[in-house]
Amino acid sequence: MSKTTMTNESILTAAAKDNVAANKKTLLSKEVKHLDITDINFVPLVDAMRDTAFQGRNLGRAADIYHQMLDDSECAIILCLAGSLISAGLKKIVVDLINHNMVDAIVSTGANIVDQDFFEALGFKHYQGSPWLNDDQLQKLAIDRIYDTLIDEDALRICDHTVCEIADSLAHRAYSSREFIQAMGKFLSEKHAKAESIVLSAYQKNVPIFVPAFSDCSAGFGLVMHQVKNPHKHVSIDSVKDFRELTQLKIKNKETGLFMIGGGVPKNFAQDIVVAAELLGEEAPLHKYAIQITVADERDGALSGSTLREACSWGKVSMVHEQMVFCEATIAMPLIAGYAYNKGAWKKRQARQLSRFFIDNE
Amino acid sequence: MSKTTMTNESILTAAAKDNVAANKKTLLSKEVKHLDITDINFVPLVDAMRDTAFQGRNLGRAADIYHQMLDDSECAIILCLAGSLISAGLKKIVVDLINHNMVDAIVSTGANIVDQDFFEALGFKHYQGSPWLNDDQLQKLAIDRIYDTLIDEDALRICDHTVCEIADSLAHRAYSSREFIQAMGKFLSEKHAKAESIVLSAYQKNVPIFVPAFSDCSAGFGLVMHQVKNPHKHVSIDSVKDFRELTQLKIKNKETGLFMIGGGVPKNFAQDIVVAAELLGEEAPLHKYAIQITVADERDGALSGSTLREACSWGKVSMVHEQMVFCEATIAMPLIAGYAYNKGAWKKRQARQLSRFFIDNE
Amino acid sequence: MSKTTMTNESILTAAAKDNVAANKKTLLSKEVKHLDITDINFVPLVDAMRDTAFQGRNLGRAADIYHQMLDDSECAIILCLAGSLISAGLKKIVVDLINHNMVDAIVSTGANIVDQDFFEALGFKHYQGSPWLNDDQLQKLAIDRIYDTLIDEDALRICDHTVCEIADSLAHRAYSSREFIQAMGKFLSEKHAKAESIVLSAYQKNVPIFVPAFSDCSAGFGLVMHQVKNPHKHVSIDSVKDFRELTQLKIKNKETGLFMIGGGVPKNFAQDIVVAAELLGEEAPLHKYAIQITVADERDGALSGSTLREACSWGKVSMVHEQMVFCEATIAMPLIAGYAYNKGAWKKRQARQLSRFFIDNE
Amino acid sequence: MSKTTMTNESILTAAAKDNVAANKKTLLSKEVKHLDITDINFVPLVDAMRDTAFQGRNLGRAADIYHQMLDDSECAIILCLAGSLISAGLKKIVVDLINHNMVDAIVSTGANIVDQDFFEALGFKHYQGSPWLNDDQLQKLAIDRIYDTLIDEDALRICDHTVCEIADSLAHRAYSSREFIQAMGKFLSEKHAKAESIVLSAYQKNVPIFVPAFSDCSAGFGLVMHQVKNPHKHVSIDSVKDFRELTQLKIKNKETGLFMIGGGVPKNFAQDIVVAAELLGEEAPLHKYAIQITVADERDGALSGSTLREACSWGKVSMVHEQMVFCEATIAMPLIAGYAYNKGAWKKRQARQLSRFFIDNE
Repeated sequence: MSKTTMTNESILTAAAKDNVAANKKTLLSKEVKHLDITDINFVPLVDAMRDTAFQGRNLGRAADIYHQMLDDSECAIILCLAGSLISAGLKKIVVDLINHNMVDAIVSTGANIVDQDFFEALGFKHYQGSPWLNDDQLQKLAIDRIYDTLIDEDALRICDHTVCEIADSLAHRAYSSREFIQAMGKFLSEKHAKAESIVLSAYQKNVPIFVPAFSDCSAGFGLVMHQVKNPHKHVSIDSVKDFRELTQLKIKNKETGLFMIGGGVPKNFAQDIVVAAELLGEEAPLHKYAIQITVADERDGALSGSTLREACSWGKVSMVHEQMVFCEATIAMPLIAGYAYNKGAWKKRQARQLSRFFIDNE
Repeated sequence: MSKTTMTNESILTAAAKDNVAANKKTLLSKEVKHLDITDINFVPLVDAMRDTAFQGRNLGRAADIYHQMLDDSECAIILCLAGSLISAGLKKIVVDLINHNMVDAIVSTGANIVDQDFFEALGFKHYQGSPWLNDDQLQKLAIDRIYDTLIDEDALRICDHTVCEIADSLAHRAYSSREFIQAMGKFLSEKHAKAESIVLSAYQKNVPIFVPAFSDCSAGFGLVMHQVKNPHKHVSIDSVKDFRELTQLKIKNKETGLFMIGGGVPKNFAQDIVVAAELLGEEAPLHKYAIQITVADERDGALSGSTLREACSWGKVSMVHEQMVFCEATIAMPLIAGYAYNKGAWKKRQARQLSRFFIDNE
Repeated sequence: MSKTTMTNESILTAAAKDNVAANKKTLLSKEVKHLDITDINFVPLVDAMRDTAFQGRNLGRAADIYHQMLDDSECAIILCLAGSLISAGLKKIVVDLINHNMVDAIVSTGANIVDQDFFEALGFKHYQGSPWLNDDQLQKLAIDRIYDTLIDEDALRICDHTVCEIADSLAHRAYSSREFIQAMGKFLSEKHAKAESIVLSAYQKNVPIFVPAFSDCSAGFGLVMHQVKNPHKHVSIDSVKDFRELTQLKIKNKETGLFMIGGGVPKNFAQDIVVAAELLGEEAPLHKYAIQITVADERDGALSGSTLREACSWGKVSMVHEQMVFCEATIAMPLIAGYAYNKGAWKKRQARQLSRFFIDNE
Repeated sequence: MSKTTMTNESILTAAAKDNVAANKKTLLSKEVKHLDITDINFVPLVDAMRDTAFQGRNLGRAADIYHQMLDDSECAIILCLAGSLISAGLKKIVVDLINHNMVDAIVSTGANIVDQDFFEALGFKHYQGSPWLNDDQLQKLAIDRIYDTLIDEDALRICDHTVCEIADSLAHRAYSSREFIQAMGKFLSEKHAKAESIVLSAYQKNVPIFVPAFSDCSAGFGLVMHQVKNPHKHVSIDSVKDFRELTQLKIKNKETGLFMIGGGVPKNFAQDIVVAAELLGEEAPLHKYAIQITVADERDGALSGSTLREACSWGKVSMVHEQMVFCEATIAMPLIAGYAYNKGAWKKRQARQLSRFFIDNE
């Protein structure tokens, strides 16, 4: 193991002398592998952590609250994804949550859904690198870095163009990101039906995916190309429609729970639907359950680290079943998701197939 | 001073017994005041910090880089705003940057622009509170909390409705957030012409403001109400158009510099335009200058804390003039903006009036 | 589970009205339980994490490096403990590391060893509380709080006095903290032989424990009482002797590895012995292996978050087998220690019994 | 300015080819300069920050509380120093606080007092470097790195030996760190009387300095050499005596305030004296004022980031005048110290000369 720790750096140091193409191939040689929670028994560990203190106890409580959400037949569950989670090997966890009816809707940043999940569904990979690599040299090799993870920039460009092609194939009107991602799922089901993919599984299981800042990722590149090619009539992404649709889901499913990885736009967007429903004159209870994994803290006043108690003052989240866990996602998410998977409340849980709601209403 | 430190908490404890309306009034009694950099001499302090170490030195360097951007007649400057900056008393700084030609375009989260700046322009205020208040009781009083700052929720609802009214008054088509915010600026210039406001000043100075996740704020509430009222034909916000427009600005202004407060969507969005321009077949150099104030760090792999060196590997930011400052914005932003203001490079800088570019092209 | 989440807070709110003694008993009713790594299989999880990214990968690498230390028959292992680890339920892990020859010397803050481990060995407990309790009321109840954990202050005072009694029973001379802690271990072996205790196990297994800031804890209270009672001749704690002794261990055991939980004095002290050995004219290689679990980061220039690479510039730590893990200890320590325990390299590892070195040299 | 940003890295890259001695000289060429608060007007900025939010407001409150301490004629002020503050250019601030009667006792880590302040008093310097330097190459050049700051290791060794010489010159008995540092001050007053130095100024102004983990620094190296040379009779550092002495000061000065930079041993040690005094049967009120500058947060349960409210549960700190500021010290300390200096309460404050208390009692 330890021998490989420094390999990438040595390669890069050598890059000056050697053939660039060869270097790129060597740097992009060790794949990130997606962690599989279905094969590991998390219950004894997480149960034990819950009787310790600090973040171990918080993690135990959060896992327990997620289990309660799944066990509550009234509760629809919204998974919020921010941060580079898919490139980091957490894709299979989300796919398993979808396939085992452990999540009913997803709100995410674009990078997770398009640049990373859809990208991998097209056959591309993420590679293990190091945070100490020389970024200037990486740029010359057309390798993009996310902390310790490497991406072939040429492959990313293919991803951008695929989004453009999908847009080209659609009727020229305003779409919610959910609708467009559904089209991406349909594309995968036709062209890459065996891919392990969030977009594909969500398409098959009728789990809607919302990306409220949809242009802020590879999809943006593809869609800008599409619009420039079609200046007068084209696909547009109406972010208001996203908000309207997610609010409709809240109105339809009174009881809701949030499982949030990271903060950012997905956290705010999913919390806001309680207020939006109320503004539309509908009765909408606070999110009954809410857990968040984050390394942000509250002291800068920004949303990502704001406490779930603060969200109660806004009339968004109930204080009864809320828990924040201060831990990086690659460690905490497997433990929490794996615990709830092992506990098995999903076995008697119905698939809500919330995407059908929109299909039926179209 | 110290006597007031605990006041709000005492009031809230008393809230159970007393008249709720009276309590709300007392809790919302001490306004947040906007810091004025134009009256303070920052140069000796920041110059001295630059010869110390750690974040003092980083802050000194970042201030110097911002000064260089202003001094570089080729360079267009994009200000990125994430976090609750305006409610925190940093509004006047941004207004001064606009009015003194120290910023040419703004990319922001919606909260800063709509819930906080536009909200204050309508005559509402933010109030000094405490992070220790009881959120359950605040909810009952319809007071929203941002860490230590309090907001009258009833006033926020008026803000939502005002956005709805503006949407009602517009032609029913797809808008970029920039276009919609311009309409908000026009509204203010007609109805609240004396407000101290980013939206208003940017309107007057032709500084375009982009909010890539425009539904993720009070604007979203207003626009959802508008669309529900007008289900078939309505205003929509096309986030692709935002990306296209900002990319056009990059193509038009080869040399660019980024002054980023916080991370999130604004940081990513503004960095991405270099790649987008390239994808459109246009020559677009890396952002020549880039500084970021943030408390996030790189170890969770998320964008907000990712180093500007990492952004170099993506072909977005040059490594020559980049500096991150690990400090909360209410402390670092006044020092950096104030230093550059004092140094006075803006005095000979031309207003770029980038909004005119779109007006002319419409 | 969730029902208990809020219990302590409700109790405290009620405290104003009720009988104080009853409240104290209720608040101090749910014990922190010590996590047992010997019953859980950590290998599949940690192996899988190592192929993900960010801190999951770092944790996997750190666990692997700890396994390598144990597998390297030349390497003596120093465990460094900072932060409130024992009150947080991590005691049994350390006891198991000692009992299974997985650690050869310990450097710790005083709180872990005296206020928490020795305290529990006397029969006292730590209790699950909440970070939201009212500290003013806790003070009145003589309950001390560590984030979410509660301590009976009256029990702590008994701990202080026990230290005083041990000092009273010793010859009046200068001791290293190691010597004094050995006396504490002897005391436990005579009076509390069945306690689950780091101090007791280390005494029995001849694992020396160093607390370089020994007065900075309950031991300080006990020893100050002892010295005030015996103003002219008394036990003193010579911190130089500590440093001298630990340096002697480095000289005796050329190859060394560090397993550091938290930073602070233990991290610095254990790293410094390489330099101290060199100053005494002895050949002493860099620490061959070093891992650290911490939530601190490098950007404030303080030692706790300084990278292990920085320690290489000081000639203290080799860069070949080093890994920092950004994670709170209650989550990361069980995973790393449990992984190495499961892997079983300790089964063929000899007990070094380093305390005997000093006994023989006395 | 920007031209120098990358200089050191370029030099180091070149180090492989060039003459090592020349490289070392070039790397150690740009000195860290000590920030001078006496020449800058901080009042308008800090007063304005206090009416903003988040850490700006917290900083304003902390500055105000420090001003109150100085204005309270009953209050003795203890300054706690943790982290690498002196190497970072904050030395002159501490010297000014001492010289203007703004601090009555100091509790510090050893690095600040010995490796950095005493080291500079001997004529050595700290140099501006970069966090991106290659630590392996630095080690070969005998250059030690603290984040972005560089030290000549050969000079540090002279500092170690000077401590050894001072120990050799003293009577062979147990000393508190305070006593030993006083001897260091005497040494400076004789040999380096013109140095700008905390140790020297504190000696001259009778401000006692306590370093509770005195071996954990360059002093430890010097004293170990001294003890090895004098195995039977030698200087020892009794950490209990430190605690006893600081407790005596608390008993003598009922009202106390804490100005804490960083956490660690100094924070805990200074807080503990309230309890220690009580254990000795003396009446000792809680610390009346307490402020702390830190980047640590409370969620890992460790002392450094624990809230001052938590310290109230322990009966150490009053909750009435306490404020934590989440900011790195090189930015926050100049603002807080400078504000209090400008406000001028020190002008009518008497020097307490607490060192005389021990001299008189010897």
